[in-house]
Amino acid sequence: MRTGDIKTPALIADLKILEANISTMASKRPGKSLRPHVKAFKSTELAKKLVKAGHDTFCCATIRELEGMAEAGIGTDLLLANETLDTTRLNKLLLEDNCRVTVAVDSIETIEVAAAAGVKEVLIDVNVGLQRCGCSPDDADFLADKAKKSGLEVRGVMGYEGHLMHDPDTRRRAKKTQESMEILISAHEAVGGDIISGGGTGTWDCNQVVTELQAGSYVLMDGDYSKLDLPFKEGLLLLTTVISTSMTDYAVLDGGLKALSVDSGNPKLFGQGEVMFCSDEHTTVTNASWSVGQRAGLRPSHIDPTIAKHESIYLVDEIEEGLDSEVIDILSIDLRGW
Amino acid sequence: MRTGDIKTPALIADLKILEANISTMASKRPGKSLRPHVKAFKSTELAKKLVKAGHDTFCCATIRELEGMAEAGIGTDLLLANETLDTTRLNKLLLEDNCRVTVAVDSIETIEVAAAAGVKEVLIDVNVGLQRCGCSPDDADFLADKAKKSGLEVRGVMGYEGHLMHDPDTRRRAKKTQESMEILISAHEAVGGDIISGGGTGTWDCNQVVTELQAGSYVLMDGDYSKLDLPFKEGLLLLTTVISTSMTDYAVLDGGLKALSVDSGNPKLFGQGEVMFCSDEHTTVTNASWSVGQRAGLRPSHIDPTIAKHESIYLVDEIEEGLDSEVIDILSIDLRGW
Repeated sequence: MRTGDIKTPALIADLKILEANISTMASKRPGKSLRPHVKAFKSTELAKKLVKAGHDTFCCATIRELEGMAEAGIGTDLLLANETLDTTRLNKLLLEDNCRVTVAVDSIETIEVAAAAGVKEVLIDVNVGLQRCGCSPDDADFLADKAKKSGLEVRGVMGYEGHLMHDPDTRRRAKKTQESMEILISAHEAVGGDIISGGGTGTWDCNQVVTELQAGSYVLMDGDYSKLDLPFKEGLLLLTTVISTSMTDYAVLDGGLKALSVDSGNPKLFGQGEVMFCSDEHTTVTNASWSVGQRAGLRPSHIDPTIAKHESIYLVDEIEEGLDSEVIDILSIDLRGW
Repeated sequence: MRTGDIKTPALIADLKILEANISTMASKRPGKSLRPHVKAFKSTELAKKLVKAGHDTFCCATIRELEGMAEAGIGTDLLLANETLDTTRLNKLLLEDNCRVTVAVDSIETIEVAAAAGVKEVLIDVNVGLQRCGCSPDDADFLADKAKKSGLEVRGVMGYEGHLMHDPDTRRRAKKTQESMEILISAHEAVGGDIISGGGTGTWDCNQVVTELQAGSYVLMDGDYSKLDLPFKEGLLLLTTVISTSMTDYAVLDGGLKALSVDSGNPKLFGQGEVMFCSDEHTTVTNASWSVGQRAGLRPSHIDPTIAKHESIYLVDEIEEGLDSEVIDILSIDLRGW
């Protein structure tokens, strides 16, 4: 099968870029010093490529991701890097063989849920500046005590500096990341444990505090991260077909808002031309010449919610001009849903 | 089952509002004068509610939608209101019993595909101002001739004034819609046939030219359409759980970019409070008080790509404060994908 035979819209990925990205990260963050975040790609088959590269601990954002990773036999050290109140599904998951799940907690309620669900290990999730989950740094000590009294082992702390991840100024990103991580160091001193978990693709080299980096997007990158000075390359493309060309100067592709996410901006064309706008099932493009029936590729600005819209990714050795490469594998996006 | 028992995030819909919206539309656009667009909701079960309300002709945007509608036994008059180059799947579809498919064409290439696939009937898709599909009005006559010479019956024309659909100024929207439809009337005079197809939720009453209105979003509405003076009400909600509350003034819900689309703006809270921002799996909200474990609802700004992210919609008789209603049905979103 060739990409020219795939019904569109569909995601295709470049294996050479995927492998280079994995290798670049593994050289700096080998083994357990990286805890890859499966939320970025939601695929156990892709996760297995990371296992081959030496990483066997993973972050998940949802219980569905934990369940799928455990079913796929790569659940020996999973971190739910997120809060949950779902005692029932956590409990069921923990009955699986060869499944070790550490859960992030940031409140009395989430500690109680973890204890009730039979969770054995937690990380205290500390707010390091992003307005999202994580306890006040001042509460980390108290919550760790509470967790221990509830019979939970506290493996350490986590804190995600997501608000700094896309800062285009490299030095400022590094400086602010260090300031943010000072908060986590203090919390860790109070809490104890072996793990300081945090960071992501954008702070992969400037975050030198975390014992494990929670990066995921680096594997296939996206337009938003590519604005930074990172060594990872964009390897994902939405393959589309030109279904209409206008008498003036634009053409229409058969993939739009339902096939890629525009939360971080419009996609960019692979090759020449510019994106005008996306509609539900279309993207209107201009400033190049296209003919009806021709293939066109769109680089998503944000891969995580884009991949979550698809059942699979077609893998090719190398994405080439003309967009007609041999398909060497089809990765199932089996961790979709919640 | 109650909505309080549903794992979150999940979509819930209000049956009373759904039925009122369907009834309001049917009173003005009865039977075949409405050709509901299934792209908005991607569910054959919801389409069957429209059949009960008297509409048995439908618009689809994708071949998957056509296939699913035919499989569900409601394929007696389907319009692919979009261009396609997929001869193989069109051909296979046409072999189904009780399946009548009319296809929009706007070029020699799409006419050739239709003829090769064994399509019998087409509409000439005319550009009426939206920079998307549709031939130049001047080419409609020529393409109709070409289609007829290729053995296709031309049922008429279609033209979608999507660029006017969200104009908040009612009089201007009406005036510009009329101007846009004058183009379609001219093309229809040249082409002939019984059908003038076009319009949508935003021009449901001011478009008095089309013989069939292609509206879909009106069934459950969304934040974007609700800015207009339409009689349809928002009936869809993303049900979430508060998983974290901050020491300052915000809380975090367990549904974000992967559960709703923000292409038309952030969602709005059902009840008090304001949305600060959405992340992949979270929405941070402020200006109200929440407790961990509490349910919260988000009104999506755009239902079409939001619904396409989910496997099902939980239907309740009425969405009430507290968000704990009896679930009376679960609608499968069975027309996802392409």
